[in-house]
Amino acid sequence: MTFRHIVLLKWIDSATDEQKAAVLEGLSKLPAEIPQLRSYTLGPDAGVSEGNYDFGIVGEFDSAEDFFVYRDHPLHQQVISERIKPILAARAAVQHQV
Amino acid sequence: MTFRHIVLLKWIDSATDEQKAAVLEGLSKLPAEIPQLRSYTLGPDAGVSEGNYDFGIVGEFDSAEDFFVYRDHPLHQQVISERIKPILAARAAVQHQV
Repeated sequence: MTFRHIVLLKWIDSATDEQKAAVLEGLSKLPAEIPQLRSYTLGPDAGVSEGNYDFGIVGEFDSAEDFFVYRDHPLHQQVISERIKPILAARAAVQHQV
Repeated sequence: MTFRHIVLLKWIDSATDEQKAAVLEGLSKLPAEIPQLRSYTLGPDAGVSEGNYDFGIVGEFDSAEDFFVYRDHPLHQQVISERIKPILAARAAVQHQV
């Protein structure tokens, strides 16, 4: 059984390329620190559709409990507070069994 | 190279369980009809987080062009117009290279 966590983020218009890159860089370090993360794929929107959000994250875990470890992990929370929240306009998320 | 399409959907409050199930059922038929779909995982939100959207879709393709075939395919468009739009409150999407 795989427990999937999907997050889509939309940035504020004034977000700089450096700030956006810092999100990718910060999140990309998490798999090495949070072993519960079985798979973690991230990326900026490809720009092929109107009205899309700006960034996508798909994380996979063995269980909801393992997802909670990731969700509450201090390093993850640090990326959220220091890098994501300052440039966040909107966030959409779903977790589901795959 | 994999081109990933991620969509999160939020339903209107009055959406019935039958209407929600009809979306899953309709979308689940698409891989058999649209060979460009290399991987297609769908599911209702697990309800473990406040403020989540209600349904997640992750489709994977060999290229953006294959994604466009899926996006514009009449069977896909039919599920959107007949099953998704009537109960749709919000939609967030991102496509990115994985």
